Amino acid sequence: MLKPGATIGILGGGQLGRMLSVAASRLGLKCHIYEPGAGAPAGQVAERIFTAPYGDTGCLRAFAEGVDVITYEFENIPTAALDLLESLRPIRPGRHALAISQDRILEKSFLNEIGLTTAPWAEVTDAASLEAAIASIGAPSILKTTRLGYDGKGQARIMTPEDAPAALAAMGGATAVLEGFVDFSAEISVIAARGLDGAVACYDPGENVHRAGILHTTTVPAKIPPSLRSDAVLIAARILNALNYVGVLGVELFVTPGGLLVNEIAPRVHNSGHWTQAGCAVDQFEQHIRAIAGWPLGDGSRYADVEMLNLIGADVARVPEFARAKNTQIHLYGKAEAKPGRKMGHVNRVL
Amino acid sequence: MLKPGATIGILGGGQLGRMLSVAASRLGLKCHIYEPGAGAPAGQVAERIFTAPYGDTGCLRAFAEGVDVITYEFENIPTAALDLLESLRPIRPGRHALAISQDRILEKSFLNEIGLTTAPWAEVTDAASLEAAIASIGAPSILKTTRLGYDGKGQARIMTPEDAPAALAAMGGATAVLEGFVDFSAEISVIAARGLDGAVACYDPGENVHRAGILHTTTVPAKIPPSLRSDAVLIAARILNALNYVGVLGVELFVTPGGLLVNEIAPRVHNSGHWTQAGCAVDQFEQHIRAIAGWPLGDGSRYADVEMLNLIGADVARVPEFARAKNTQIHLYGKAEAKPGRKMGHVNRVL
Repeated sequence: MLKPGATIGILGGGQLGRMLSVAASRLGLKCHIYEPGAGAPAGQVAERIFTAPYGDTGCLRAFAEGVDVITYEFENIPTAALDLLESLRPIRPGRHALAISQDRILEKSFLNEIGLTTAPWAEVTDAASLEAAIASIGAPSILKTTRLGYDGKGQARIMTPEDAPAALAAMGGATAVLEGFVDFSAEISVIAARGLDGAVACYDPGENVHRAGILHTTTVPAKIPPSLRSDAVLIAARILNALNYVGVLGVELFVTPGGLLVNEIAPRVHNSGHWTQAGCAVDQFEQHIRAIAGWPLGDGSRYADVEMLNLIGADVARVPEFARAKNTQIHLYGKAEAKPGRKMGHVNRVL
Repeated sequence: MLKPGATIGILGGGQLGRMLSVAASRLGLKCHIYEPGAGAPAGQVAERIFTAPYGDTGCLRAFAEGVDVITYEFENIPTAALDLLESLRPIRPGRHALAISQDRILEKSFLNEIGLTTAPWAEVTDAASLEAAIASIGAPSILKTTRLGYDGKGQARIMTPEDAPAALAAMGGATAVLEGFVDFSAEISVIAARGLDGAVACYDPGENVHRAGILHTTTVPAKIPPSLRSDAVLIAARILNALNYVGVLGVELFVTPGGLLVNEIAPRVHNSGHWTQAGCAVDQFEQHIRAIAGWPLGDGSRYADVEMLNLIGADVARVPEFARAKNTQIHLYGKAEAKPGRKMGHVNRVL
């Protein structure tokens, strides 16, 4: 159990790092941020920020040597940087979870191997393998790069086999995966945590609505029967245990007539878990810090119904309205400019 | 209404500044801290910290010029520093409230002038005025320095007139005030806020228990009848309006057979308001930031019963126990060393 006064290193200085740093402060822990980009939101509430590219081994080393444990707020950290950091300090969650979540094919293979259902999928490296994949999975389906994709980027829909060449071109030569469309009635998320001692805790599943490929709202409780609620929690626990995971993990699930399908996992705090700031004694950010710092997991029981609404781009102009609203918590990320599609903040409304 | 990206300057880098800075971050506002002492808790979660004495006019000027508005986490800021800062940026709450709260005689005179009841009191400057004061107020009573007293420091009890010389000596030649002992059944606090637009909002009164002159617990709701609850809120509102106040103010009140007496006021967020972190959509720290930043006051309705327990000195060793407890939020202040009487953190337990 890291003592108050210890320091946590966070790779990535965006809003997740920002809210992790604030949560760590409640436990008397300091945070150092490593972020290549200038003006990082997390730097405004951290003891120290290292602004340098991931290839700067001197800066990486100085960062690692100043902290007790390293975590991250996003998956796509260069492997060489991780190799160096791991030689100096523990990285939690560990490399295995990170490697799996960085690669859609590894991720789907892992999920299927531990007995979980995903959408039908096939690896695509060229026109021939795409043709074979469409023949097996059918259309409509969706082609995605295996790496570096998020919030709808690096994806192309295939409505008919004639869309195949354009979709393949959109992958830019990268290995891709073709996924069958899933007939789902809802998307839900489970935010789950596993401690250094192997204890597991799950937040109540939330129901997600996306707009233009970006999360729009998460509402708890999700409108699903108790049996699916249990299934969702068991799926999350199976993933955490199979990965010998330490920290918070987000699991996105599709609700289908045949039960739950795993859409994807994120080895970090997750946008669909922001509601926990308004509905639980210990939110997902503090839960993650507790886990990686070797503290006992906290009480994540939900004591309120909550709707989390993302403020994307120009939505941030609605802040004066939310500032006057009842039962409403505002969380802004300290980003200078409201670009289209950029996550500027969120509001949690207790229902 | 300060726009996200604006910067708030906070005089004082202790736990109140620390929690103010975290609250400001939720509104997209940055904080700069000014604190003479090294290793300030607030510096761990602020964009910038100026470590310099209040006599360093160059550093004060640089601090002021980098922020949009200035506030403070404690009352005893040197007047010359305030004069300089006020010439550069608005200070909220204003100088009038600060001057009153820095001096027990000014404070009690102000309270009496606006029709509020205090304990009987008299100014004491020498043996003769102390003798006269004891003759009028009686013993037991308590002699307090008029300035720089907090958490039971600078105080001496007078149980019989024979205690007078020792009590006077304990004042070290400073002007003092003799206060009559009050027969009270409870001490309660009202945490109240007034916006830049004059709007007033009060949190539900909490009931305080002290140990060794330091706040031990605050519990909401206070066990008082509805009529006293209304009286408490009206008293706070009268003080805020009389001071043309902007920000959060703490009012300590004694519950007596004859009604409420005002014990003291603090022109800042207050230890007895820490429970708002667990029981309200907008806590006292964010409420203060909203007020001084010209935002609308937030919704401070209480939606849970809460007990706030201070962790003083060695109490911090109980953190592993609290970390395992249900419905319990831990707030540690990032202080390096647990000295006796030092406020190390607090826990909010939802009842």
